[in-house]
Amino acid sequence: MARSAVLEIGSRERNPTASSEQLLDATASLLSERTALDVSLSDIAKRSGLNSALIKYYFGNKGGLLLALLERDSKVAMAALAHLVAMRVSAEQKLKIHVSGLINAFYRAPYLNRLIHYMIAYGDDVSSRRVVTMFREPMVAAYEAIIAQGVAEGHFRPVDPTLLYHSLTGACEHIFNAASSAPSARGEPKMSEEMKQRHIEHVTEIFLRGLRPGLNEY
Amino acid sequence: MARSAVLEIGSRERNPTASSEQLLDATASLLSERTALDVSLSDIAKRSGLNSALIKYYFGNKGGLLLALLERDSKVAMAALAHLVAMRVSAEQKLKIHVSGLINAFYRAPYLNRLIHYMIAYGDDVSSRRVVTMFREPMVAAYEAIIAQGVAEGHFRPVDPTLLYHSLTGACEHIFNAASSAPSARGEPKMSEEMKQRHIEHVTEIFLRGLRPGLNEY
Repeated sequence: MARSAVLEIGSRERNPTASSEQLLDATASLLSERTALDVSLSDIAKRSGLNSALIKYYFGNKGGLLLALLERDSKVAMAALAHLVAMRVSAEQKLKIHVSGLINAFYRAPYLNRLIHYMIAYGDDVSSRRVVTMFREPMVAAYEAIIAQGVAEGHFRPVDPTLLYHSLTGACEHIFNAASSAPSARGEPKMSEEMKQRHIEHVTEIFLRGLRPGLNEY
Repeated sequence: MARSAVLEIGSRERNPTASSEQLLDATASLLSERTALDVSLSDIAKRSGLNSALIKYYFGNKGGLLLALLERDSKVAMAALAHLVAMRVSAEQKLKIHVSGLINAFYRAPYLNRLIHYMIAYGDDVSSRRVVTMFREPMVAAYEAIIAQGVAEGHFRPVDPTLLYHSLTGACEHIFNAASSAPSARGEPKMSEEMKQRHIEHVTEIFLRGLRPGLNEY
């Protein structure tokens, strides 16, 4: 977490964006340790080893900083998704890899889910809209391509990619809500690696079976 | 919305809880009109036609009021779920009715989803834990019973009821996030009755197919 701070000491003059990366790293590491999004600018400054005035300089305010963190996370995730769509494997295989990738992303960055919900519900219109553009639009486009491939391969029914985006993302993320990962009355630990793995298998099975073609006999 | 306020004028002395119900009704109607949960005590007082001091008297503070609103909503929903579990219909039919009930509940009370997430993420430990007890525990118990029935009837695979709770609830609710129901760049209207109906069909098909028994051939 303080890794990049150590590496970048004295290099601020040569690489002005290194400081903004340090601030984003510090924010991500603080958010990963907490249940709520109650991280203060002075906490971030302290963790990054930089002056909090730099947050104003680079991001304007805390909202701008959180949006920049989401932008950085979304770039990595959406590049991986575009790569997956272009791979020469079956649509079923793509969906399987995607479910695993999505749940692992929420597991590695437990703040991601809360931050997306927060920006959508409490951000201004521009931030809220930006989060939709960062995550929803590329994901719906990816699902459209994967469904079309699966239908052509005879493994999927044609389904609405926007509805699949909501049902699949919701199915993956709900378990990462704060109280679900908080210890239960029975004293179970927080979300474990083993439970994460079982959730990946559960969601994969539901959706691969759920997308299969065949008559609707209900 | 001002209905109960009209009916209850002058009856406060005879029925002291009528005022608290009026305050909950006013809160629910205000929250239904807004994207965020930014309703103030004075807005609630104004809408209910009552003095805001009564909010402190009955609920302590805004957090207590929101928790009481969730308690009231959960009682209705969980009673309906218990009734469904006891019905003499197939497990497939129960799941179908449940998905429709869940999505309709989010549609009728668009604040419900946001309020649950808010109380879990930002409420104190007691409120957060209470929300889990109100919704998660009775739902997991209901799923356990429905899965056991479906397995006995030969229509369902045995799946973990807790994982099904997360995947199914998440699949139903994600579409009700603020930005999803907000107008898109293409100028589409907010969540429509028609889209809600299509989402009910989508989620029902995914999960009824997804729960079917059969060999895992992936």
